Amino acid sequence: AGDPTIVHSGTGKSTMKMSGRVHADAWGFDHDDNIDQIAANNTDEANRLGFRRLRFGVKGNIQDNMVYKIEMEFANGNDAEFRDAYLGWSNLAVLQKVLLGNQKRPYGLDHLNSSRYNVFIERPFVIEAFNEDARRLGLQSYGVSDDEAWNWRYGVFNSRNLQDEGNYVGDHLQLEVASRLANTIWYDDVSGGRGYAHWALAGAHSDVTENQDANEGAVAESRFRTRPEARTAGTRWLDTGRIAGADYYNLLAVEGVVNVGAVQFVGEYQHNWVERDGFNDVQLNGGYVYASYFLTGEHVPWDRSSGTIGRVKPFQNFWLVNKCNGCTESGWGAWQIAARYSVADFSDEDVAGGEAEALTIGLNWHWNDNSRMQFNYITGEIDERTDLVGTGNYDIFGARFMVDF
Amino acid sequence: AGDPTIVHSGTGKSTMKMSGRVHADAWGFDHDDNIDQIAANNTDEANRLGFRRLRFGVKGNIQDNMVYKIEMEFANGNDAEFRDAYLGWSNLAVLQKVLLGNQKRPYGLDHLNSSRYNVFIERPFVIEAFNEDARRLGLQSYGVSDDEAWNWRYGVFNSRNLQDEGNYVGDHLQLEVASRLANTIWYDDVSGGRGYAHWALAGAHSDVTENQDANEGAVAESRFRTRPEARTAGTRWLDTGRIAGADYYNLLAVEGVVNVGAVQFVGEYQHNWVERDGFNDVQLNGGYVYASYFLTGEHVPWDRSSGTIGRVKPFQNFWLVNKCNGCTESGWGAWQIAARYSVADFSDEDVAGGEAEALTIGLNWHWNDNSRMQFNYITGEIDERTDLVGTGNYDIFGARFMVDF
Amino acid sequence: AGDPTIVHSGTGKSTMKMSGRVHADAWGFDHDDNIDQIAANNTDEANRLGFRRLRFGVKGNIQDNMVYKIEMEFANGNDAEFRDAYLGWSNLAVLQKVLLGNQKRPYGLDHLNSSRYNVFIERPFVIEAFNEDARRLGLQSYGVSDDEAWNWRYGVFNSRNLQDEGNYVGDHLQLEVASRLANTIWYDDVSGGRGYAHWALAGAHSDVTENQDANEGAVAESRFRTRPEARTAGTRWLDTGRIAGADYYNLLAVEGVVNVGAVQFVGEYQHNWVERDGFNDVQLNGGYVYASYFLTGEHVPWDRSSGTIGRVKPFQNFWLVNKCNGCTESGWGAWQIAARYSVADFSDEDVAGGEAEALTIGLNWHWNDNSRMQFNYITGEIDERTDLVGTGNYDIFGARFMVDF
Repeated sequence: AGDPTIVHSGTGKSTMKMSGRVHADAWGFDHDDNIDQIAANNTDEANRLGFRRLRFGVKGNIQDNMVYKIEMEFANGNDAEFRDAYLGWSNLAVLQKVLLGNQKRPYGLDHLNSSRYNVFIERPFVIEAFNEDARRLGLQSYGVSDDEAWNWRYGVFNSRNLQDEGNYVGDHLQLEVASRLANTIWYDDVSGGRGYAHWALAGAHSDVTENQDANEGAVAESRFRTRPEARTAGTRWLDTGRIAGADYYNLLAVEGVVNVGAVQFVGEYQHNWVERDGFNDVQLNGGYVYASYFLTGEHVPWDRSSGTIGRVKPFQNFWLVNKCNGCTESGWGAWQIAARYSVADFSDEDVAGGEAEALTIGLNWHWNDNSRMQFNYITGEIDERTDLVGTGNYDIFGARFMVDF
Repeated sequence: AGDPTIVHSGTGKSTMKMSGRVHADAWGFDHDDNIDQIAANNTDEANRLGFRRLRFGVKGNIQDNMVYKIEMEFANGNDAEFRDAYLGWSNLAVLQKVLLGNQKRPYGLDHLNSSRYNVFIERPFVIEAFNEDARRLGLQSYGVSDDEAWNWRYGVFNSRNLQDEGNYVGDHLQLEVASRLANTIWYDDVSGGRGYAHWALAGAHSDVTENQDANEGAVAESRFRTRPEARTAGTRWLDTGRIAGADYYNLLAVEGVVNVGAVQFVGEYQHNWVERDGFNDVQLNGGYVYASYFLTGEHVPWDRSSGTIGRVKPFQNFWLVNKCNGCTESGWGAWQIAARYSVADFSDEDVAGGEAEALTIGLNWHWNDNSRMQFNYITGEIDERTDLVGTGNYDIFGARFMVDF
Repeated sequence: AGDPTIVHSGTGKSTMKMSGRVHADAWGFDHDDNIDQIAANNTDEANRLGFRRLRFGVKGNIQDNMVYKIEMEFANGNDAEFRDAYLGWSNLAVLQKVLLGNQKRPYGLDHLNSSRYNVFIERPFVIEAFNEDARRLGLQSYGVSDDEAWNWRYGVFNSRNLQDEGNYVGDHLQLEVASRLANTIWYDDVSGGRGYAHWALAGAHSDVTENQDANEGAVAESRFRTRPEARTAGTRWLDTGRIAGADYYNLLAVEGVVNVGAVQFVGEYQHNWVERDGFNDVQLNGGYVYASYFLTGEHVPWDRSSGTIGRVKPFQNFWLVNKCNGCTESGWGAWQIAARYSVADFSDEDVAGGEAEALTIGLNWHWNDNSRMQFNYITGEIDERTDLVGTGNYDIFGARFMVDF
């Protein structure tokens, strides 16, 4: 380490890792459909080209058992946003790991999975709508049993996404308590984890502010909205708006995974009971199932400590693969196909967030452990929205190139 | 260093350190008081939750004797801001160290102290009002005597805070010359610096632009404002506005510190003479005193080269502390209590910036060298403002969690 | 590498370098001239002080032959912008290196040169106008012949600068194909590259959108504009506006360099044919020549693999220079003088972008490999613009301090 160009952390008591990712996307919308009637204001959805994620940041340990992380998202040009941003403690008795700061709320497997590993380009309707952008300022404990069969997270969060503003201002704190209990009921150690099964139960109680009181200064976090499992402009195709009179909502989520070698089956369902004052209560819900298969025989690894999927490692890398005594030969990477069926019902009583169903066909070409291409074809339908925003069928094509480092 | 994952600086002629900090705050305002009459526009100040500082950046040396630093602040979400951002020279004859770029102006001990080390969560009225956000684009020399008894800084600065805009545009450069001479008159080497005394004298002459000439394009930097030694929304509770006809102002600042083991006494006073054309000159001033004490016996270290306080090192870390032959035992960290009394008089003649006094009671719980919790209770009063913004008493509670790395 | 403070990349399969730069500028405009009639809206151009570039970012390799880079620009305060931001492949057959993401379009030597190495503070009229901010989202191949005599780049790009927005939205993709073929026809290896000659030919075909169709959501990228080879406020002194009816444009660029020891001659010319529907086609063009000379005898290095200039290495560093047996002595750095004559004609038919010519006299004081000061005096004239924005003579003084790391 006599090399003066080696980068060091700022203090002698902290370690540091620096990591990031580049995700570049292209999205095409089939204009033969009546897609121009779907988005708000009758604006036809235009094709897109650009960065979905441009991140880098730092994380590490602080003596003796503290941790930190700041990860920045620069894909939106001028508008930088933080993602994971916290301080915390590890190796605690009972609580195990506790993080304070911006971190993912503990429901929705597809949200808890990293975007580096998820099988489809964008997340399902219900996962994104009930947990928009996933991260909130909170205090959360992360635990795992000694045999790694069980893992859990629970915490308390502010309901507002602070990634644009950095601070929440309001006398009503709009707190949410949420937790997830996960069980890897089968894990085939002999094959290195090529076979496993998982289920988890998660729930949340979110005490949103009922009405917009000027003196309180806070915006009611009682809105559920999402894009069509593709990347679109600002307007969301499904959107309840801020639900009038919403006092609090309770969320229940179930999820399951079965993996047998190159084949994986995943499903989730979430149900949301919104309690309102002066209006009829409403129930919103949605779910999805998907199956994926590696043509080249690899498998989707499983992380038993967090109950999420892990990094795919191709048998052979694309372009070049090191083999035997230093000789190289070309490889074709790992090829994975997948299909997802997703539904959402965000319309109930006077709330017209929309009903949707969509089928996504996906192809993932993994070049190596840290990079892949993803191709998605999505066909769907949106119904039961208000007159202002139309309904109809749509067909969307998407492609992503990604690396992480 | 054969490890390929080691991060290197971009050129073989430069070194690099990467450091940062996470400060997460919670602020509560007692609404039993007439606080709703204090802030502008009669808007009641709302409670807050969020990030106060989310920073990381790089610094290092360039052959043979140059230095650089870029530190970014990401706590405001979309609005990134640079903090220290400069290039410079070290080991110079006579000038010693010279930095060109965004750096702290040389007055106000409490501003020169790092936010990582300051005893109270937020800085006193006068320190922040006369040197808002502290850093300006300038050219400054930093020196210290061989025996470290004396240290000094002096430089020339543009008066505008460029952290939002990056550039100053205007034909009137609004230059300021400022300097600080500091003397550590007593330093007890035998105890490792547990006893010391310090005084310093600082001054500035700031040639602000007199009136807003459209052709000049610059905003007059003749405004002094601050928050109530707590974090509030955009409106400042004390605010002179841009002082009409201000031609230039002269600032004089005195400061003193006495530290005896676990006890520390600190005081500062600043006086500002604003020379005006077509209006009566005004004088603004303020000051504070505080005492702090470590229940657990540690002390606040002193940095004789810069004349600022240093990093507290707990005798025992919180949770775990390494001791004797590799065995560990639990510790309780370092506990520090403190009280500060602060006053400001920013109302004179037609200028009604407000008169304020505040008492802050603080408790700091240092977990280890790089992390601590801070708790502040503030009770204060604001008077002598205009009719548009009210006056009154207030009580505020604040908490901060912080790490640096 | 047992040092725990060493920073590591996020995954075991990627390497990382972290680099950046600080450029601090001062610009003064001579108000004796009729400069107040030049900029739009009759606003007199004001003097400037601030950061031109505040960058840092990461780059590295990913197994086995992939690359990545994210470099951020923080000089504009709140408005962060990405610069190079891509993923790619190296060591490919035929294609050699291919990058996907934000990268420089392949025309204009002065744009392909790094701002760390360029001889003048700002780039010539035509180079900046025809390739504003240089970088676009695209897919580009970079190649070099085995003997390094030839190098080339070619690719396809989206025509919009995405550095503010991160994404392009629009059904008309406004694609551009562009390429550059460069030949180092003479390179004197014996003297370590103190003698060389280079020429290159570059071209582009840019299929911009013809008219602003609300359904398409895209802005026509048929505008050519630039500042007066100095840094000014938002309004550009030369500006065609979005050229009505522009269907596509073709660009041809030639460039040449001759370097003999301390002397360098450089010239470029670019011609732009804009094809329009419903309007007469227009032709825009411009060029420049410059000569530079090192008073202290150094030379401008040449990078044969990219066909761009390289990093100047002073014989003696400024302040201190290590010499013989560990003794040090003072040096005066490297001193370079230069003169540039630049012209642009962006007025044709109904398009009144302006005609300009400018002479720039420059002095560069290189302190060491990584830092220098630059001084420019610019005298110029702008003509043939519309009545709304005036024409006239101007004199501008500029200075820059820079380091890179």
